[in-house]
Amino acid sequence: MKKIRGYLLDLDGTVYRGEKLIPGAKEAIEVLRGRGRRILFVSNKPLYSRRDYAQKLSRLGVPATEQDVINSSFVLARYLAKEAPEARVFAIGEPPLLEELKAAGLKLSENLEEIEYVIAAFDRTFDYRKLTIAFQALRRGAHFYATNPDRTCPVEDGEIPDAAGVIAALEATTGRKVEKVFGKPSRYMVEVALEVLGLRAEACAMVGDRLETDIRMAKEHGLTAILVLTGVTGPEDLRRSSLQPDHLLQSIAELPELDLELGGGG
Amino acid sequence: MKKIRGYLLDLDGTVYRGEKLIPGAKEAIEVLRGRGRRILFVSNKPLYSRRDYAQKLSRLGVPATEQDVINSSFVLARYLAKEAPEARVFAIGEPPLLEELKAAGLKLSENLEEIEYVIAAFDRTFDYRKLTIAFQALRRGAHFYATNPDRTCPVEDGEIPDAAGVIAALEATTGRKVEKVFGKPSRYMVEVALEVLGLRAEACAMVGDRLETDIRMAKEHGLTAILVLTGVTGPEDLRRSSLQPDHLLQSIAELPELDLELGGGG
Repeated sequence: MKKIRGYLLDLDGTVYRGEKLIPGAKEAIEVLRGRGRRILFVSNKPLYSRRDYAQKLSRLGVPATEQDVINSSFVLARYLAKEAPEARVFAIGEPPLLEELKAAGLKLSENLEEIEYVIAAFDRTFDYRKLTIAFQALRRGAHFYATNPDRTCPVEDGEIPDAAGVIAALEATTGRKVEKVFGKPSRYMVEVALEVLGLRAEACAMVGDRLETDIRMAKEHGLTAILVLTGVTGPEDLRRSSLQPDHLLQSIAELPELDLELGGGG
Repeated sequence: MKKIRGYLLDLDGTVYRGEKLIPGAKEAIEVLRGRGRRILFVSNKPLYSRRDYAQKLSRLGVPATEQDVINSSFVLARYLAKEAPEARVFAIGEPPLLEELKAAGLKLSENLEEIEYVIAAFDRTFDYRKLTIAFQALRRGAHFYATNPDRTCPVEDGEIPDAAGVIAALEATTGRKVEKVFGKPSRYMVEVALEVLGLRAEACAMVGDRLETDIRMAKEHGLTAILVLTGVTGPEDLRRSSLQPDHLLQSIAELPELDLELGGGG
């Protein structure tokens, strides 16, 4: 059995919840880093930049740089810049996504005549005007990509509608299906993560709180799947699901112990 | 075979297109009325009141009163007022729908604690704020109704996203399914139409341009189905569809001739 050399760590519900670190997260990550494990933070949220995430982690006591983080908007922008450099793009999304696209050399446009790609994302400023521009561009044949497939996003006092609402509104009105979704559980996310870590899938474990994204991605792409119970998934959800992790932890605090088994003494 | 005594006439694409009557519509309706046929105009659009429609028809040369028209918002408001008088309702919709609900005695609310019904409708002022209120109310158990199931609405220079986008966004983010949809092809629309006309389904024909709404409703509820080719459906769409009308007309102008066959000399 191949030893685990790197960990993909989900953020919200795994490393922190809102503005609070999960107890023991800081120490667990220190121990893993001390053993030479490579750590990459992996988020589906296109609402913040990689730098924002790195700053937040550092502020909470887990030192991190931009290079230690990937999210769905980064993966999408990187892919699109390779597939169609300087493409004209219309995105239903918030400013950090738009900045990410521009930084990758893509051109933002609201001109129906020239839009080649429509991007559906988590967008708290989603409105009928944006829906109509995307609808018209898709009707004229633009490609249809999305950052992440999440139904909801956890917030302090519950959940709010995520990118799935935007994707569904466009699918239902245009009669088209989204072509590619870049966040977890997609292979695009895995490919970028492995490239950044410089490791193969068999040498990596994904640690997260969501069955449909974190655990599904690991199971479908050859990573070891580790579920933590500090986020949206409870023991009852797990019993009812056909998606089962390889390992179950109460929280990330238990990860160093499991790592001794998975990766050896370092 | 039961004789046809009443006609349900779709509006946009059947009686008029935008601001222009379909050639021969005025004369056809005059002839039918002269033979004693009962005429009811039936629209899925919740963007205007019945009075608006009556005024538009009269202005275009087809005299009509409020009582000659039903649309999806009228049917929904009437149903809801019977099922749950004075219920607290949150509607994603435009002012004419909100007025219709208030006129039926329902109470509009944005208070999550008290919303009992969420209504999804065609709404050109749809935004994330409304999506979130509806999402939260549905998560707390509110009923989930919709005015009409249309994907798109024809406008002068093409089509724009209709209520299907709002329904889909709510279904995708909440994981719930819409419980009742009141426009064509629903039985609610048929029931109100037959009640207003004072006729049974076998004595009525539905004339419209859409297979999925007009023709489906007729076929599923025992009305004679008449398709006109002056709207969204072309001969090629018809060939490819499993939904087939009982009669096919180039336009409503041919209806008086067909009526002689269906209803007799009057």
